[in-house]
Amino acid sequence: MSYQAPLKDMLFVMNELANLEAVSRLPGCEDATPETAEAVLEENAKFVGGVIAPLNHAGDKDPSFWKDGTVTTTKGFKEAFKQFAEAGWQGLQHPTDFGGQGLPKLVGTPCVEMLHGANLAFALVALLSDGAIEALLTAGSDDMKAKYLEPLVTGKWTGTMNLTEPQAGSDLAAVRSRAVPQDDGTYKVFGTKIFITYGEHDMAENIIHLVLARTPNAPEGVKGISLFVVPKFHVNADGSLGERNDVHCVSIEHKLGIKASPTAVLQFGDHGGAIGTLVGEENRGLEYMFIMMNAARFGVGMQGVGLSENAYQQAVAFAKDRVQSRDLAGSAGPVAIINHPDVRRLLMNMRSQTEAARALAYVGASLYDAAHHSADAAVRAENQAVYEYLVPIIKGWSTELSQDVTRDGVQVHGGMGFIEETGAAQHYRDAKILTIYEGTTAIQANDLVGRKTVRDGGKVARGLIAQVRATAAQLGELQGAEFTSIQKNLERGAADLEAVVEFVVANTKSDIKAVFAGSVTYLKLAGIVLGGWQMARAALVSQKKLGAGDGDAAFYQAKIVTARFFAEHFLSTTGGLRAAVIDGSGGVLALGVDQF
Amino acid sequence: MSYQAPLKDMLFVMNELANLEAVSRLPGCEDATPETAEAVLEENAKFVGGVIAPLNHAGDKDPSFWKDGTVTTTKGFKEAFKQFAEAGWQGLQHPTDFGGQGLPKLVGTPCVEMLHGANLAFALVALLSDGAIEALLTAGSDDMKAKYLEPLVTGKWTGTMNLTEPQAGSDLAAVRSRAVPQDDGTYKVFGTKIFITYGEHDMAENIIHLVLARTPNAPEGVKGISLFVVPKFHVNADGSLGERNDVHCVSIEHKLGIKASPTAVLQFGDHGGAIGTLVGEENRGLEYMFIMMNAARFGVGMQGVGLSENAYQQAVAFAKDRVQSRDLAGSAGPVAIINHPDVRRLLMNMRSQTEAARALAYVGASLYDAAHHSADAAVRAENQAVYEYLVPIIKGWSTELSQDVTRDGVQVHGGMGFIEETGAAQHYRDAKILTIYEGTTAIQANDLVGRKTVRDGGKVARGLIAQVRATAAQLGELQGAEFTSIQKNLERGAADLEAVVEFVVANTKSDIKAVFAGSVTYLKLAGIVLGGWQMARAALVSQKKLGAGDGDAAFYQAKIVTARFFAEHFLSTTGGLRAAVIDGSGGVLALGVDQF
Repeated sequence: MSYQAPLKDMLFVMNELANLEAVSRLPGCEDATPETAEAVLEENAKFVGGVIAPLNHAGDKDPSFWKDGTVTTTKGFKEAFKQFAEAGWQGLQHPTDFGGQGLPKLVGTPCVEMLHGANLAFALVALLSDGAIEALLTAGSDDMKAKYLEPLVTGKWTGTMNLTEPQAGSDLAAVRSRAVPQDDGTYKVFGTKIFITYGEHDMAENIIHLVLARTPNAPEGVKGISLFVVPKFHVNADGSLGERNDVHCVSIEHKLGIKASPTAVLQFGDHGGAIGTLVGEENRGLEYMFIMMNAARFGVGMQGVGLSENAYQQAVAFAKDRVQSRDLAGSAGPVAIINHPDVRRLLMNMRSQTEAARALAYVGASLYDAAHHSADAAVRAENQAVYEYLVPIIKGWSTELSQDVTRDGVQVHGGMGFIEETGAAQHYRDAKILTIYEGTTAIQANDLVGRKTVRDGGKVARGLIAQVRATAAQLGELQGAEFTSIQKNLERGAADLEAVVEFVVANTKSDIKAVFAGSVTYLKLAGIVLGGWQMARAALVSQKKLGAGDGDAAFYQAKIVTARFFAEHFLSTTGGLRAAVIDGSGGVLALGVDQF
Repeated sequence: MSYQAPLKDMLFVMNELANLEAVSRLPGCEDATPETAEAVLEENAKFVGGVIAPLNHAGDKDPSFWKDGTVTTTKGFKEAFKQFAEAGWQGLQHPTDFGGQGLPKLVGTPCVEMLHGANLAFALVALLSDGAIEALLTAGSDDMKAKYLEPLVTGKWTGTMNLTEPQAGSDLAAVRSRAVPQDDGTYKVFGTKIFITYGEHDMAENIIHLVLARTPNAPEGVKGISLFVVPKFHVNADGSLGERNDVHCVSIEHKLGIKASPTAVLQFGDHGGAIGTLVGEENRGLEYMFIMMNAARFGVGMQGVGLSENAYQQAVAFAKDRVQSRDLAGSAGPVAIINHPDVRRLLMNMRSQTEAARALAYVGASLYDAAHHSADAAVRAENQAVYEYLVPIIKGWSTELSQDVTRDGVQVHGGMGFIEETGAAQHYRDAKILTIYEGTTAIQANDLVGRKTVRDGGKVARGLIAQVRATAAQLGELQGAEFTSIQKNLERGAADLEAVVEFVVANTKSDIKAVFAGSVTYLKLAGIVLGGWQMARAALVSQKKLGAGDGDAAFYQAKIVTARFFAEHFLSTTGGLRAAVIDGSGGVLALGVDQF
């Protein structure tokens, strides 16, 4: 079966949890009414379900390949990207000035989720273009904007991020690529970049590389890195393509997953120098790159959600179809395996984590919109701070759990899951990159600890915990074992998160290694508590709807069950995570290197 | 780098935790002195490290392939198996009467772990032969034993298990293959078997298939299944090979992992009938097959341990070699990533789980030896009961954790881990089969609940918990934060396991689905508590050795640190698991099928 966008849940989360109605009242967001948004989501769902999803398995089976410096993508990708661009999907969240639709992030986010859910390897080209657009919008000169933005926003060209070098992965201080200023104001760029997603391909006429490099005499470390635009083909004043630039793809990687997405080794300047133009000011490249990175990190979080959804759908379809063994409580013949308790447990694992991660991400998108569009500067700042706290969690937690979810997906399939034809194994392989690129989970966790928790003394975190507690209190007013259970688990989760936040705030300065030994565990704990909070809010809304006899009762009942499952199977783990952070650093750090 | 057997830890566990000395005092085990065992392990380590391990990545890159009914295995496999057989490794644990070495399981187990650790796909051929040998030893006629055992034990031929059919995976009641009695006492076997590991290959002269099929008028369900020996080539009275039998490999699967191991679709009887002979009595086939299954399940547990060890070794080597970013607490240049706290945490996750699973399995092997060799029938029965309780845990828990460990292994490598050349990704792919074949984790968990916990009213489980508490009490007598922490976590773990066992015993009859909804979680909890118990025992022994100034102090110190890490990061999770089992079944089961 092929991926279908989970529109019902997306609309529920967008409207009921992330409050689209409030977003559509923000200045500049007036067009994004719930009705318009629903129409956009439906249209996008049709497109990705019909055009993009069917290419997912094909891309895995017949990946992009390299020959003599050119990359041929999987059959159908080029045509699909043309349709994607022409329908305006690349420009959904980008300014109308440059050919975009100017829709808020909250409306764009479900569309991004669908695209990734349908075909992770395909969607990466759009994700990277989004990042390039963001960086140019923020730091590019007027000339650059005029030259590059409209073709990028309309999907005529695509963009890339060139950070990594063989010796510089997580450690960008080690970047060695050089940029030598020329008399005409341009730079000649030299160096080798690796792991460049869609660094070379045949799906667009031009590729706009954003490249980190050092100018002569730049300071060492991250403070001496500048950002350059290096197009594959030079662009003439009239916008037409000029000569080929001196950047060449010398190979692509043989990878565990996302095989259709070409991961390029790019060689800059081997034939005299690749001509680049400086973005913004010298030595501020990392700052600009972080604009791309933060957009991309949120996007990778959505990859985690989308991929989890796809794996869940496939597992459900298989479990309904596959007949094997009698029902435990019945004596009749064999039944579909969805009736077996452990298959249920696996499916509920998959479902509840996916829904929780989706809800947290959309709420994050809504905060982003308020941070960018609110009329009140204080409101903007407040929302921005909470959004920034959530980004590493949305990226780190959603992608880590996508590895659990896709693993459960294979498991539901039993032996058939291990056979590549079935497609479940592809999700398991694809998922593994998500916790690595755009910053590993440890990098996200360092960000969460350092910039997002310690810097403000835990203020934002405490504010969120207070909101979690307010939701728990509301649950306490409802009758029913399911609400009591959610309340109890949520309250304990909030207390565990609070204890860890206070531990982090109190100890990072005095014993940084002890805190960082638990940073990923803190991130996971925060994801579970905040995701569980969203599921609890969803249960509250659902109960209200059920009481009012409003809408799809089966959907709301299922939402309450799923929230309960999440509480009892994931919120229930926070005590262990708290202990691992607060008591567990000694064991992490005690061995000498030679003892390994 | 290539796998090296962790001899130091293996010898420690074998001697100090699994008490080889006591095993070597059992009747028939007198040759297995600690000195002999050490020599055997060293010799085996040399062999697998030198001959088998170097073929692991090659087997993944250039898997076995099928053409016109024959399977050509990866280059080098045939020669390696010949060396393996000639050196006597296939026969290590098998009776000397048939060409084996007759060593106890406790000595065989580390050798099995090494073989799997070095090369999972290769080792499977030996694992399946072991199973066939066990079944023939137990249920085969004298004629069968005379005909088949010596060539199997000496590795001249190999064996297979033919259970699965397209409609009969976990559900063996659905087996449809037919066996029609002939006048000469043989049977003609007809049917299609799938997922037959090493069902066809070129590494041995003959393949002895053990096949489940139904005789005419056999009862329906599992009580109407018989077991047959169907050799690929008939065997003449003098042991020479006769005509080709009517069993043919029509294809092999394209799999996620263990690619060098051919997974065959076998067609029996398409050209008139495959001639088979009945093993034991009609309709008792499943019972005999479970002999193979139980041996194989323990073996698959060792695959989990071996693979985890391999992934750990590779991650350690990478983490020591890869230089990236400054030390958090230092201001000097970039350091090897093993110095970064989260890399440490990942490595300790891998290390501590691998060591705990190894210890539990070796202790299980020692129980098996006592169950088979003790002079006292009561002692035999008691050990057998505990061994049988542990088998689903050793299989289920060690393999589930191998998926966590191999995932962490890729993560340690960062982007390099996602590139297939590095080899870390192969472990991640290989691991996924381990929780599926020889009974999924859910099947193991059902066995743990039904046959191993409820049937004796929880007696064996309670006996183990009492032993866990005794170890915790011993820890309480030691000074030092590490011992206090291990003690506290172990005591709480024991209480959580006890609560779950009592819940299972009390509720399986009245509410079987509620209990089975938590069966895998119970299995995981039992694995963590019993594995943590072994680590705690290891810490006690290590402390004693350190006090006595006896042996390798760095090793014993590391063991105590690792035990502490396991307690603080895994034993600390048991409260959440307990809650998920006892409170969490409602959410698992509440949705209607249509709500998925």
